[in-house]
Amino acid sequence: MAGGGVGLRGAAAGLVLSLCLVVSCRAGKLLVIPADGSHWTGMKPLVEVLGRRGNQVVVVIPEVSGSLGPSEHTITLTYPVPYTRTQLQTIQRANLDTIMASDTSNDISRMWSYYQTLTVLRNYTSNNCDSLLSNQDMMQTLREQRFDAILTDPFEPLGVIVGALLSLPAIYIHNGLSCGMDFEASQCPSPPSYTPGRFTHFTDHMTLRQRSVNFLWALLRPLACRYLYSDLTSRYLEKDMTYRELLGNGAIWLLRYDYSFEYPKPRMPNMVNIGGINCGKRAPLPPDLQEFVDESGEDGFVVFTLGSLVSQMPEERAKQFFDAFSRIPQRVVWRYTGVVPENAPANVRVMKWLPQNDLLGHPKVKAFITHGGTHGIYEGICNGVPMVMLPLFGDQGDNVHRMAVRGVGEVLSVFDITSDKLVEALNKVINDKSYKQKMLQLSKVHKDRPIEPLDLAVFWTEFVMRHGGADHLRPAAHDLNWIQYHSLDVFALLLTIILTVVMVTVKCCKVCFHKCCGMIWTRKMKSE
Amino acid sequence: MAGGGVGLRGAAAGLVLSLCLVVSCRAGKLLVIPADGSHWTGMKPLVEVLGRRGNQVVVVIPEVSGSLGPSEHTITLTYPVPYTRTQLQTIQRANLDTIMASDTSNDISRMWSYYQTLTVLRNYTSNNCDSLLSNQDMMQTLREQRFDAILTDPFEPLGVIVGALLSLPAIYIHNGLSCGMDFEASQCPSPPSYTPGRFTHFTDHMTLRQRSVNFLWALLRPLACRYLYSDLTSRYLEKDMTYRELLGNGAIWLLRYDYSFEYPKPRMPNMVNIGGINCGKRAPLPPDLQEFVDESGEDGFVVFTLGSLVSQMPEERAKQFFDAFSRIPQRVVWRYTGVVPENAPANVRVMKWLPQNDLLGHPKVKAFITHGGTHGIYEGICNGVPMVMLPLFGDQGDNVHRMAVRGVGEVLSVFDITSDKLVEALNKVINDKSYKQKMLQLSKVHKDRPIEPLDLAVFWTEFVMRHGGADHLRPAAHDLNWIQYHSLDVFALLLTIILTVVMVTVKCCKVCFHKCCGMIWTRKMKSE
Repeated sequence: MAGGGVGLRGAAAGLVLSLCLVVSCRAGKLLVIPADGSHWTGMKPLVEVLGRRGNQVVVVIPEVSGSLGPSEHTITLTYPVPYTRTQLQTIQRANLDTIMASDTSNDISRMWSYYQTLTVLRNYTSNNCDSLLSNQDMMQTLREQRFDAILTDPFEPLGVIVGALLSLPAIYIHNGLSCGMDFEASQCPSPPSYTPGRFTHFTDHMTLRQRSVNFLWALLRPLACRYLYSDLTSRYLEKDMTYRELLGNGAIWLLRYDYSFEYPKPRMPNMVNIGGINCGKRAPLPPDLQEFVDESGEDGFVVFTLGSLVSQMPEERAKQFFDAFSRIPQRVVWRYTGVVPENAPANVRVMKWLPQNDLLGHPKVKAFITHGGTHGIYEGICNGVPMVMLPLFGDQGDNVHRMAVRGVGEVLSVFDITSDKLVEALNKVINDKSYKQKMLQLSKVHKDRPIEPLDLAVFWTEFVMRHGGADHLRPAAHDLNWIQYHSLDVFALLLTIILTVVMVTVKCCKVCFHKCCGMIWTRKMKSE
Repeated sequence: MAGGGVGLRGAAAGLVLSLCLVVSCRAGKLLVIPADGSHWTGMKPLVEVLGRRGNQVVVVIPEVSGSLGPSEHTITLTYPVPYTRTQLQTIQRANLDTIMASDTSNDISRMWSYYQTLTVLRNYTSNNCDSLLSNQDMMQTLREQRFDAILTDPFEPLGVIVGALLSLPAIYIHNGLSCGMDFEASQCPSPPSYTPGRFTHFTDHMTLRQRSVNFLWALLRPLACRYLYSDLTSRYLEKDMTYRELLGNGAIWLLRYDYSFEYPKPRMPNMVNIGGINCGKRAPLPPDLQEFVDESGEDGFVVFTLGSLVSQMPEERAKQFFDAFSRIPQRVVWRYTGVVPENAPANVRVMKWLPQNDLLGHPKVKAFITHGGTHGIYEGICNGVPMVMLPLFGDQGDNVHRMAVRGVGEVLSVFDITSDKLVEALNKVINDKSYKQKMLQLSKVHKDRPIEPLDLAVFWTEFVMRHGGADHLRPAAHDLNWIQYHSLDVFALLLTIILTVVMVTVKCCKVCFHKCCGMIWTRKMKSE
């Protein structure tokens, strides 16, 4: 596969890579192992800026992937994997179809959907680990480069394991791990009383019942982690370490959220919020699209996408959307690759791909219909566009709840969508001005920041490269076991001391009492 | 008392202040109520920059104080207090003499010293609260100004109470409260297993004994808070609120430390680290002082101060210092207003005041003898100068420990100082290159930051003024009581459910068992 600067594969990469790195070694040397899908969307701008700043950035990706590919100002290396593009697409398609056919509005379905997602992730992850880590040539090439650091998304453990094998300080960029291991690994307190767990769809204000469910969920989550990562680290590392311990060695955690989206909660000194990193500057729209939206009149237009993975849906369901759009005065730009009915309304422009952020920045945009991925949501926030949200899977259910409680959008279930519901929701977010006002307020707060998130991410990545880590930000909690961390040994010690003191005192009193009584008794006896 | 821009007192302030504020109302209106002593040193640069940026900054201070005074680009208002400058100095002197005469190296003395400091603070604080809050004219003047926010140091509760009375969003700037209430009030987790409490002199790596003491200290600290603030809030506020609840309303907490000094620990989204805010640009030295240090040769020179409050010491103790300095090849610049012996060594330059940061930035400086106040320590870190530290009171004992464990300085007790000990410590930090190397490394890490601490403090203060607070950073933990926060009600509920299920199951089993046994028994009897 071709890279942005140089495209290399396997063993052949070694020599060319060495030459590249010798020719220009101005700044740091960074190894990048990204995760697939929308994860790459949040990482790519950072990787490209790091390369543009003169760092030698080597991105290692599987030969076959969903969204991964070359990036500018970087070298991309690929490693062979035991599946073809068609096979990968078939698996993704099947998984999506199952999800699209199910209903995640009830707890059991949601848990089942969660389990399925974990299984797909586990298999994919395991395959990629096997493919790269058993590729001796590629690993030797990477070892010889003596990188300064590794930048990776811990959503997939491959990068973290490679970092450990090459003894590189690690920078993580992510949006939360599916089993919540990030909190445990970073030693970041996450009180279940006001930090809702993933997939619960709770807010930070919970009822007693919700807090109980959240509490149980916090206790059970480690099982999901064990299912996902149990044997991966021990299989490839000589040391007997769990993935959690390995993850705990991360120098910096770049968190792809801020508090215009996430609920406020504790964080550690080595955590850096970079929410909105993907809201870059807007580019001009293609001329025909520009004309279509410019001429949308006072009613404006609506942008509709369901993310990078979902560009089509069952025909019957699509019909509901076309029908709804025919009943609203706005024009609609829809990313859709499915079958378009013959009587499709004229106000709908269907496209295979659309420049989402550029469209959302247009002054005539009125609403954004989105699946609730974090990138889309942040583009909505950046541009101040109210949303109608149709969560599909993963963290999307939680994401959309975060927006709905702020009053900047409406949530619908894509699984039982009807044109009536859609029209009602669209009319609500477009005509009830409170949605727009609240969204503009949120946008204002989000964009009022001392430094741009991309600059912050670049700074901390280069900081780790310059200093060989960020040891001064590492909490001593990493050196305590669970019992020590929670002061249970202290509690036991203090309890023992108190009990001993009480027992000794009682014993002494008893002895004194008996002695006194004995003496009085003896005296009494004598006197009698 | 005169202000930097306009000097006003009491009732007369109203009209002039209104005129000033009407004439130029470009940016925000900020009320500032600072704390006395070195606290003002950390706040003054921020206040002046905010004024210079066009904000209308009104600083309210008592007519008599230790270090408070006019600042540039601000309006200073003063309120009368029931003590004179001489009385204040006499109290301060007496308190310092008691501290200087005691020995804080053992726990009992340290606790006694802590209690004395709390008592002095409590009386001073109470006096100032009475003086300003019962000054109806001044309070009315402030109320009429309709400030956008208040900037205050919660070390003294006056500013926090005024903020509540005027319903202003508050920005706190501080270095930790003496009774640790800042963690509770901000809902910031502070696990006692690795976050050493104030005055314990522990590091973040503690033995079981130390963790036990720290645990107990964390339990007892609220008593100190109660002693300090118990009746203040209820005396002045109509609502029945504790100081902790009042403090919890703060929008932003500007923390005058970073992790080149403090141990890494959790923080909340509305906490901003601005450690090193006082390390401004260096100014040229006065010509005679410049000459003195320039001509210090290869041996260089040593800077010696014991902070803004302590400029002299008992003659016998001072003799030890003069004696020690006569035995080192370095020149010494010493802030000292006490009696200078006739045979004082020629390499010592005694001064009533010295430009500490400018001297520490001189290339020939070899060591810094300091009492361990945070400002001095940060100036040492900024300029990469190894330290000999002589903690006196307050947080200084903890501060110097933080430096000593990093290997950038030596700690001595000023209470049993001898010239031998001093010479040995000075020779160690000057001649053992590891101190300098580690200090330079620490300095490098401290100064490698994405944004200057002063700019960050300015940004967040103006953010609160622009948005009327920082509600999006306020954790929902504030809306939970202690039982809910710690999920104790959830725990009780789950335990009740489990016990009920177990009991019902056991009961059912018993009933079934009895029935079965009864039937078998009856059949057996019948068959027999």
